[in-house]
Amino acid sequence: MHANGQPLTSISAAKVSLTGGYWASRQVINRTVTIPAIYHQLERTGRTDGWHVHENDARHGHRIVDKFWDSDLGKWLEAVGYSLMTHPDPDLEKLADGVIRGIADGQQPDGYLNSYFTVIEPDQKWRNLRDWHELYDAGHLMESAAAYYQATGKRMLLDALTRYADHIDERFGAEAEKRHGYCGHPEVELGLIKLYRTTGERRYLNLAKYFVDERGQSPHYFDLEAAERGEDPRKFWFKTYHYCQAHKPLREQTAATGHAVRAAYLYAGAADVSAHTGDSTLLDALRVIWDDLTSHQMYVTGGLGPAHANEGFTFGYDLPNESAYAETCASIALVFWAKSMFDIDPDSRYTDVMERALYNGTMAGVSYEGQHFFYANPLTSYPYVNPYEHFSGINTAKHYRREEWFDCPCCPPNLARVVANVGAYVLSHSADTLYVHLYTQGSMTAALPTGQIRIDQQTNYPWSGDVQLKMMVDHAVPFTLALRIPNWCPDFEVRVNGSTTSADVVRGYARLTRTWNPGDTVELMLAMPVDRIAAHPKVRHDAGTIALQHGPIVYCLEEVDNGAELANLVIPREAVLRAEFDGTLLGGVGVVTGEAVRAEPLAWSSGLYQPQRVLQYENRPVTFKAIPYSLWANREPGEMRVWMRES
Amino acid sequence: MHANGQPLTSISAAKVSLTGGYWASRQVINRTVTIPAIYHQLERTGRTDGWHVHENDARHGHRIVDKFWDSDLGKWLEAVGYSLMTHPDPDLEKLADGVIRGIADGQQPDGYLNSYFTVIEPDQKWRNLRDWHELYDAGHLMESAAAYYQATGKRMLLDALTRYADHIDERFGAEAEKRHGYCGHPEVELGLIKLYRTTGERRYLNLAKYFVDERGQSPHYFDLEAAERGEDPRKFWFKTYHYCQAHKPLREQTAATGHAVRAAYLYAGAADVSAHTGDSTLLDALRVIWDDLTSHQMYVTGGLGPAHANEGFTFGYDLPNESAYAETCASIALVFWAKSMFDIDPDSRYTDVMERALYNGTMAGVSYEGQHFFYANPLTSYPYVNPYEHFSGINTAKHYRREEWFDCPCCPPNLARVVANVGAYVLSHSADTLYVHLYTQGSMTAALPTGQIRIDQQTNYPWSGDVQLKMMVDHAVPFTLALRIPNWCPDFEVRVNGSTTSADVVRGYARLTRTWNPGDTVELMLAMPVDRIAAHPKVRHDAGTIALQHGPIVYCLEEVDNGAELANLVIPREAVLRAEFDGTLLGGVGVVTGEAVRAEPLAWSSGLYQPQRVLQYENRPVTFKAIPYSLWANREPGEMRVWMRES
Repeated sequence: MHANGQPLTSISAAKVSLTGGYWASRQVINRTVTIPAIYHQLERTGRTDGWHVHENDARHGHRIVDKFWDSDLGKWLEAVGYSLMTHPDPDLEKLADGVIRGIADGQQPDGYLNSYFTVIEPDQKWRNLRDWHELYDAGHLMESAAAYYQATGKRMLLDALTRYADHIDERFGAEAEKRHGYCGHPEVELGLIKLYRTTGERRYLNLAKYFVDERGQSPHYFDLEAAERGEDPRKFWFKTYHYCQAHKPLREQTAATGHAVRAAYLYAGAADVSAHTGDSTLLDALRVIWDDLTSHQMYVTGGLGPAHANEGFTFGYDLPNESAYAETCASIALVFWAKSMFDIDPDSRYTDVMERALYNGTMAGVSYEGQHFFYANPLTSYPYVNPYEHFSGINTAKHYRREEWFDCPCCPPNLARVVANVGAYVLSHSADTLYVHLYTQGSMTAALPTGQIRIDQQTNYPWSGDVQLKMMVDHAVPFTLALRIPNWCPDFEVRVNGSTTSADVVRGYARLTRTWNPGDTVELMLAMPVDRIAAHPKVRHDAGTIALQHGPIVYCLEEVDNGAELANLVIPREAVLRAEFDGTLLGGVGVVTGEAVRAEPLAWSSGLYQPQRVLQYENRPVTFKAIPYSLWANREPGEMRVWMRES
Repeated sequence: MHANGQPLTSISAAKVSLTGGYWASRQVINRTVTIPAIYHQLERTGRTDGWHVHENDARHGHRIVDKFWDSDLGKWLEAVGYSLMTHPDPDLEKLADGVIRGIADGQQPDGYLNSYFTVIEPDQKWRNLRDWHELYDAGHLMESAAAYYQATGKRMLLDALTRYADHIDERFGAEAEKRHGYCGHPEVELGLIKLYRTTGERRYLNLAKYFVDERGQSPHYFDLEAAERGEDPRKFWFKTYHYCQAHKPLREQTAATGHAVRAAYLYAGAADVSAHTGDSTLLDALRVIWDDLTSHQMYVTGGLGPAHANEGFTFGYDLPNESAYAETCASIALVFWAKSMFDIDPDSRYTDVMERALYNGTMAGVSYEGQHFFYANPLTSYPYVNPYEHFSGINTAKHYRREEWFDCPCCPPNLARVVANVGAYVLSHSADTLYVHLYTQGSMTAALPTGQIRIDQQTNYPWSGDVQLKMMVDHAVPFTLALRIPNWCPDFEVRVNGSTTSADVVRGYARLTRTWNPGDTVELMLAMPVDRIAAHPKVRHDAGTIALQHGPIVYCLEEVDNGAELANLVIPREAVLRAEFDGTLLGGVGVVTGEAVRAEPLAWSSGLYQPQRVLQYENRPVTFKAIPYSLWANREPGEMRVWMRES
């Protein structure tokens, strides 16, 4: 951590073997369904062989999308890498090796590596960093190279990407002879950091830092570059550089703004730069932005970005539910950022948000069966209302459902890589402290200076708050075990070897400092009430409503369980809420049930509007059933609501 | 009416002298502020001299708007015509005469009369009826010609427009040698009917009927026309002919659909065609569409069209408040349609809606001072949220406020003409029945077969439900006086010459059949409770909320009176609501006050979300004050809400 100039150590997914429960079952689906399904789509659309398609290729699609091709491929390779770390699969590895060979073959003699600008518009390389995503593509390929190398030890992709990183480093930077550019869509910062962590090459860290530092400086690179193209810089299609967080230098920014995925990738990359450079000015800025985002601009699901118009942020407390954009990728990016923040500023304020975004906003993005995906994640949904579609006035029923693929398919492979890599979010450690962020059944290892540690976790989390940890160490090891006490948890108990133990909670983690012996057990019992969550009184969209939360899981009501017109279902404040485990539902999930009332007039004669004096109301008692928000739209289509009226 | 093949007779605004109260005061502002302000804008932008500008003229603006120029000018001239009917003004008349001379000078030898296609693209005449508004422009000029001739007896504009109508009639129609086209934006039907009523020339009626009949027939004219231009008809920018109500013939349509102004202009024009042709198949279709619209798709303000995307309808019960488009012109068009429906199917179901749209959705479009205008009319408004603007992610405060002018300024002159012509909506009559629709202070004359009738109305309506009518007839005249009993009125009393009289209410009108003598008085006392209006249980946006209505006036709460965060202000069901007249507010208006509670937690520690178990609530009693919705945004900017939470 920054105090002593040393960030926490992240633990690779390779060190975390998930053996059962929520994440293990999701990883099975990810491995057996999602990763193959995405490969099929990448192959179908020509992306697996991007350097060898031609403009008249039927797979080619239209150009604006093509500029993102390499990123989609990169995220899939990265997911494959993470998956291979714990689940070797020779066929999958062979498939990936073939793709990698195609990429390596496509690399230009000077190291340049982008399929679109190699095949389609070779004379347009590096001419429009603002809009054309070249560095964004590079970043995703770099991330995949690092993951694939760590998983397999194979260097082909890593070598290609370090050559490409060198090519980029020769071209961009502070030196007078270099171009002072950076990407309109942040991401390459994250890729460069991963290359740095993998190769130790400090130039990559420095270049990542340069991209963060240069962003938003004057004279503005995007202005200069537009002028070079003979264009009026003011004719930027999005009208403002807020869109890409380049309206001013990051250290002067105080609010989350613009396109949400760009924003959170930038913040995550900047946090990683801060981690490895010890630059506290970046951390200071990121803390301010974090506070703004989590205090004013985040959905209860960990979704980010209410607006379709900019796929991003608007202003504080503006969190419409039915029209929420809340792109799946933005929640994923928030997971990244939260973890990076924790590792330089260890506090559960980050990992609590990480968990919220992971279980809710992120996991809503993929169907239970694993091959359909949400791009936008509204918190209320009605038949006919499809937040994707420019409504054309045709009165045909339309439910918002997950899709197999998108013209811009950033979300599906992003989901694949985050699920495959979820082990990396379970722990962090310093020289003397092991932080456990996520409770999930499995076996986790970490190398502390005092010894190798393996911890076996047994738990039904997130459906139960009881967690058993067993120290599988070879010999006694002194260290502090820091267990996250989630912010949703009102009370907890810790037992060490069966005896209740007091533990100081420091920055959200219960600290148990001792010399741990082989076989020592820790039991953590987190009280997990079903909570009625209220939103800040300035969130006008949620006034008079509550969201149901049990542990880290945010719930929703669906029409299939509760009938239509969910807006008329009112949960009295005194209603008893029960959490149960339904083993028959979608592979086994927690559900929340309770008593509510249907607040509807007894008879509605005609017309749209009636004075109440002619109406009679009955509050008809009903039992409701809520399921995890992330699992909505897996059964019969219909209405869905997170925020329910209360009385 | 259709039963005997004879529609009711509309009464010209020339026959209605408004002498005080609501409408007279609005007409003073309209005459002295609005009409001059619009002239200033028309002149500033070049529209007053449209046939004589050139492409490089600074006033020229961009082309897409130019295609609507003549319609804006037409509506202003029409407003001037109505105003001159009751308020002669030589200076205004001289100004209008000059504009008319410019129009007449611009007419081509063959009768063609459109400034854009005369000056800018003369080779593009009649090439794109779907998108280019030529017939729409023609219709507005026809309406102005009829009004100006009726007001002044001057024939220059009327002659120009009959020549243009002849030109159009030669070109379009059922005959083999004519083109089978019609306009993408209905309006010319209304203009042709007015020319027919003014000149008696039946060809104009027939042409209006042809345009209604041909609409949506196959082969589809817009397809054929696009093919003639060498375009793919499927590349229609709005993707569907629902947008312009041309997806199928009107007689087969069963729901209000597409662009709301286009829709209501079409329906109004078709009702007029039905009136003069006795075509009951049109009336049957219009009744079905009317029921759909008023039962499923109308805001409580009489606003139409929730969606920005198509400036129009979406689907039943989809009535979002904050993002409501509800274009001012659409409410005005609904006023037209409602009146036309009544005149062929006399029932207060039409005039009740007419009154609702007039006092609320229409009058919200103009500021109290008369020179700022709303285009969209949301029912909830928050700082930062401007339904016009594609939000760009810049966090700057922005209130939704009326504007002086628009790139497409259809609404301001539409408001000017409807306010100037409001007298025309007060009465209708048949041979033996005089229907009074609107109660307002003034003097109204009508020529019945049995004699000339003048009625003097004394009332403070809409702030009071007491109306006195005095028969100013020269001699005893037998007829039925039919007084509208508004659907908001739960109880009424009628006195004739001071004696309580029973009156049958037939289709919403209390009928008093007798021989009326000079000086006879009728007192109508309409009970006018402050009503708590509920929306249909399928309107999810209004669940758990009420709108306040007193008489025909829909109220709203504004931040300036009630503080911010109006979403947290809850009106208990048992709260006593009081209607008062505030003579100091915006020229004197009714206000509604009552007791409410602020339902906010006592202290909100931090963050966006809190479990209710850690919150303490206090329902802090407050007194609220609501003002007429139509007058919102005339004081300090801030929040506004029509639908208030109730408990």
